[in-house]
Amino acid sequence: MISDLKEIISINAKGMKRSAIRELLKLTQKPEIISFAGGLPAKETFPIEELVEITKDVLENDGASALQYGSTEGDPTLLKALVDRYNNQGLNITKDNLCILTSSQQALDLVAKIFCNPGDKVIVGLPSYLGGLGAFTAYGAEPVGILHDEKGMRADLLEAKLEELTKAGDKPKFMYVIPDFQNPAGVTMPLERRKEILAIAKKYDLLVVEDSPYRELRFEGEAQPMLFELDNNEGNVITFGTFSKIFVPGFRIGWVLGNPAIVDYFVKAKQSTDLCTSPFVQKISAKYIEQGLFDKNLIKIIEMYKEKKAVMIDSFEKYMPEGVTWTNPEGGLFLFLNLPEGLDAEELFHIAIKKNVAFVLGSVFHCDGSGKNTMRLNFSYVSKEDNVEGVKRLAQSIQELMDSKK
Amino acid sequence: MISDLKEIISINAKGMKRSAIRELLKLTQKPEIISFAGGLPAKETFPIEELVEITKDVLENDGASALQYGSTEGDPTLLKALVDRYNNQGLNITKDNLCILTSSQQALDLVAKIFCNPGDKVIVGLPSYLGGLGAFTAYGAEPVGILHDEKGMRADLLEAKLEELTKAGDKPKFMYVIPDFQNPAGVTMPLERRKEILAIAKKYDLLVVEDSPYRELRFEGEAQPMLFELDNNEGNVITFGTFSKIFVPGFRIGWVLGNPAIVDYFVKAKQSTDLCTSPFVQKISAKYIEQGLFDKNLIKIIEMYKEKKAVMIDSFEKYMPEGVTWTNPEGGLFLFLNLPEGLDAEELFHIAIKKNVAFVLGSVFHCDGSGKNTMRLNFSYVSKEDNVEGVKRLAQSIQELMDSKK
Repeated sequence: MISDLKEIISINAKGMKRSAIRELLKLTQKPEIISFAGGLPAKETFPIEELVEITKDVLENDGASALQYGSTEGDPTLLKALVDRYNNQGLNITKDNLCILTSSQQALDLVAKIFCNPGDKVIVGLPSYLGGLGAFTAYGAEPVGILHDEKGMRADLLEAKLEELTKAGDKPKFMYVIPDFQNPAGVTMPLERRKEILAIAKKYDLLVVEDSPYRELRFEGEAQPMLFELDNNEGNVITFGTFSKIFVPGFRIGWVLGNPAIVDYFVKAKQSTDLCTSPFVQKISAKYIEQGLFDKNLIKIIEMYKEKKAVMIDSFEKYMPEGVTWTNPEGGLFLFLNLPEGLDAEELFHIAIKKNVAFVLGSVFHCDGSGKNTMRLNFSYVSKEDNVEGVKRLAQSIQELMDSKK
Repeated sequence: MISDLKEIISINAKGMKRSAIRELLKLTQKPEIISFAGGLPAKETFPIEELVEITKDVLENDGASALQYGSTEGDPTLLKALVDRYNNQGLNITKDNLCILTSSQQALDLVAKIFCNPGDKVIVGLPSYLGGLGAFTAYGAEPVGILHDEKGMRADLLEAKLEELTKAGDKPKFMYVIPDFQNPAGVTMPLERRKEILAIAKKYDLLVVEDSPYRELRFEGEAQPMLFELDNNEGNVITFGTFSKIFVPGFRIGWVLGNPAIVDYFVKAKQSTDLCTSPFVQKISAKYIEQGLFDKNLIKIIEMYKEKKAVMIDSFEKYMPEGVTWTNPEGGLFLFLNLPEGLDAEELFHIAIKKNVAFVLGSVFHCDGSGKNTMRLNFSYVSKEDNVEGVKRLAQSIQELMDSKK
């Protein structure tokens, strides 16, 4: 064995931890546990029958290309399907604005690879998606957290922090935001806040990285324009998309949408990272979109999650002890729960696991270690019945924790 | 637009170039060009009919898992299939020795991410696989090239270089070797050289990264043990495998085989890179192996490439001008051609393209810029007829270049 293995790994790898969420998920895979911990879509939304037909079609009619290496930029059929879909939604893009990636996690990896030297600052929300934090810190970037209010990242705090960092000669490389149904907070930026955030980014000449995995899963309220759209092709915003929550995660398809000059860096970085994304799953996805099945299925997913969220919120109102608060997201997969100040979600976790219910500690989404009294709950995966039962168990666990502190 | 885009990208991204091969491939995609440039497997080897059946089976019987997120380590069905297959070949491994990756290019990316700080040295062959060089330099690593002879990397030069670097306090992070049918040189290390290389690695406490995409494509001669096998589970060797050349590239499946302590770093690094490899294509591949179809198809591939290589070598002997030499590989997809000293393969490229035949400049595989008179030719992709016709055109181009220098 290499005698100095722990010494010779890179400075950045020394900081790599196994993802808290994925390790927790392993603990919570016993069948008796009702888990609100993951971020899994409901398997009932997977269009298995249609995929049998489409896969057969792709293999029989385009198999030689589907099973071969593809271009780094993405399969032409999927690029076209995405361009058409975005333009039907009011954008005005071409395939040069896109690069297909192997999941939006790869987008998070590549944006850090492209922009971050060790020690570089990046702006993130407090809280923010753990997979983003993990990808950025794997290149030695240092996340700087900006507190949220009920409209998402606070513009006043953002501007003050940018002023401070710029004066100190430590301007961040980019700002990472999830404007719609934020993971983990479940909040959505209203138009006004989007405009403020974008204006501040432009004032400080800062790239905005808009992560948008849930945007199309809106249950209620009015759709807000993407930051990319508000930017009007001026090149200050790049947007990450993915099929994981609106089609299937098992294909591992994501993409970056942005100015061609920036997208070109993703193409170059992707070449040395995995050459190309599977043309097989790209061609299947393209055909699924072309045949109109994607949008039909999306309506079904939205209906299902809307109902599941309502069940969870109803159960909160029924069972949660006084002092517990939660966000009520207009879409997405997650909501955020606040225990009364001073209570520790980690203590709660151990009580809850004994009662066979699981969640994710909110603190793991806080780059500054705050958020001890918060927790993220997923409502998309478990059945409505388990949803109610899980909330009951969780409420009992919280009551038990509260009682123990009296 | 961000005004200082070129300035704010990372030091490493500044060095990223579009892959010379992939860009060349674009130039050579006109249908009239016979291209020896790519590294594509022959599409006739893709088992389309079988995959239609297996995909249907996976979707109908295991669709909910196949389309969901999977574990970072890999799908249990594919891990088991690979463990069984390796152990049937005489290894003694468990699933803890493996992590499934999204192509072996991802393995090259992650090994650099895990081990390399900017400025770290890594040992490579002269010549060596361009995708390896690109992945390592994307993390600021500096490849140090060791000349080949007809048995692969020269042990005497390796030892001298390691002695020199270690004395200078600049010990390399790892040594990158492709022992079987090396890309691009087409040479295979005999047992004796393998033992020497491994002994030197152990003497200098150096990790050996064994890239093994072609190993199973042996046409003739005797199979040599993998360096991983010779290492006897002592933890000095990690091996990268892939389905790209022995099944289909379009699934983008590779893996790392190594000591569990090292594999664990790959799992952690992969979590922030793309979370997991598509369970869909993993499950299809596992079933394809389980049903015995993989090994049956492999025999067919070997027969086909053996014949294609023989056709190319025959044509060389018939048509190549005096002074041109080539390697005659015992397997794999590539061979290497040497022009008489002083001739420039880049000059030849422009003549050849006009005659509608393409290849890759050997110099791109040399980290020190040498190898100007060399070129890599792929024999797996084009038909036997085009193989002959392409070699004729190439021989004419070389003759033309030679005549112009008289």
